[in-house]
Amino acid sequence: MTERRQGAVKQITSHSNPIVKEIKGLVSQRKHRSQSGLFVAEGLKLATDALDAGWTVRYLALGPEARDNPVAQKAAATAKARGALILEVSTAVLGAMTRKDNPQMVVGVYEQQLLSADQITVPGSTVWVALDRVRDPGNLGTIIRTVDAVGGAGVILVGECTDPFAVETVRATMGSLFHVPLAKLSKDAFKGLAEKWPGTVAATHLKGSVDYRTPDYRDPVLLVMGNEQKGLEEDLVPACQTLIRIPQVGEADSLNLAVATGVALYEIRRKHLEL
Amino acid sequence: MTERRQGAVKQITSHSNPIVKEIKGLVSQRKHRSQSGLFVAEGLKLATDALDAGWTVRYLALGPEARDNPVAQKAAATAKARGALILEVSTAVLGAMTRKDNPQMVVGVYEQQLLSADQITVPGSTVWVALDRVRDPGNLGTIIRTVDAVGGAGVILVGECTDPFAVETVRATMGSLFHVPLAKLSKDAFKGLAEKWPGTVAATHLKGSVDYRTPDYRDPVLLVMGNEQKGLEEDLVPACQTLIRIPQVGEADSLNLAVATGVALYEIRRKHLEL
Repeated sequence: MTERRQGAVKQITSHSNPIVKEIKGLVSQRKHRSQSGLFVAEGLKLATDALDAGWTVRYLALGPEARDNPVAQKAAATAKARGALILEVSTAVLGAMTRKDNPQMVVGVYEQQLLSADQITVPGSTVWVALDRVRDPGNLGTIIRTVDAVGGAGVILVGECTDPFAVETVRATMGSLFHVPLAKLSKDAFKGLAEKWPGTVAATHLKGSVDYRTPDYRDPVLLVMGNEQKGLEEDLVPACQTLIRIPQVGEADSLNLAVATGVALYEIRRKHLEL
Repeated sequence: MTERRQGAVKQITSHSNPIVKEIKGLVSQRKHRSQSGLFVAEGLKLATDALDAGWTVRYLALGPEARDNPVAQKAAATAKARGALILEVSTAVLGAMTRKDNPQMVVGVYEQQLLSADQITVPGSTVWVALDRVRDPGNLGTIIRTVDAVGGAGVILVGECTDPFAVETVRATMGSLFHVPLAKLSKDAFKGLAEKWPGTVAATHLKGSVDYRTPDYRDPVLLVMGNEQKGLEEDLVPACQTLIRIPQVGEADSLNLAVATGVALYEIRRKHLEL
């Protein structure tokens, strides 16, 4: 574990610097992310999103371009004032950290934030999305982005899911990761939550007999989506009041998970969303 | 160019076999795909989709597992009867072809099919999707899959788009590539098409003042979606009658392109789709 240094600036030129190695480990290995409780997000936009939303920045690495960029300088000043270590690095070192030929000018390391089960609050007019064993980082990131867009309350990861703090997931959220609360629940904890849920619990299911446009979704809504290949775990079905289906014609077997979630969310929020 | 051999079976054990090299080139380089008019699709499901839909198979490579699989054997027999060369290969050769550690048991090489501009027919009750400079293979593949699911007529690629025949795109279509007609048009050709379109031409646009749920979409509908980063090219805007917007709250800047297309398509087809 690299020792934390508060609110300082450090030049790094060597690829074998321990902090560079630490960041590389966070990018490439889930184990390193869960042990340290840290994760990496690329780009200046995500850094400003993270700072605006009050997430804790551990390191902010700035490439040469960022040193002339006022937005990057402001982000660095804010991060430093809150105790982050600012790393001034070459483009080559940025690329080595993120394993990219054309790295972004800013790479941040942040502390993970997850809600515990009892922090899943259910205010009146909202929707939570629960994902049963979601596998694909792009799907998870895209769903987090969509939940943000519809003003949803958060995303609950049920069972063994892909890592919400993987670089690919974070990238696909386009910054919404920092605005959408996330929780991880075991299957049993989720069943307990769903059974006492005060509003509609709707799950998409291949055997669903209810057209997704017909329920009178009672707020707060809990939308439950199954795994990409296997659909919803049968064991979770009894905890869901309403099994909905999105109609499909043609030769397609199913919709992409993120698309199906988007279509369902826009229907659930139909009466709430206005231009 | 490897010589085509009709309806035969060939064992390949060497990674340096010319057909293996040809397939590797088709997987990795767009140039090879456009020069040859061929492309690669992985997996038995896609092979049966392609054969059912009448696409021309050039090669069908079968790994050891496929030799005991009745569905794979049936696909191979059909492909061979239609003139394909069946390749019996090791798992290592399959992996080398597709640059994967765990390749699928079947890899097919197919002839590309694209409609020309005058083949874009506009039957009464349908929707076409036009994509302006779509960049991401996953988005394009997912949109093709969604167009299939809503019974859409096809997808029109406008300007410089990602390759619909790239392996990542084909994979994301989940077989819908073989069921959804595709066309490529220049910007000018597309403007000509949109201007004489008999139904509603609706484009999502950041400045769109029309909620996507309010138009009375007249069939056939042409839904126009802009580039992931830049949105719709300004030059195309005058050709689109209706600029729609999907409402968003929260901190998200925008929806993912495939999600936005899915939400708009399900709205446009609202009166046509039933469980």
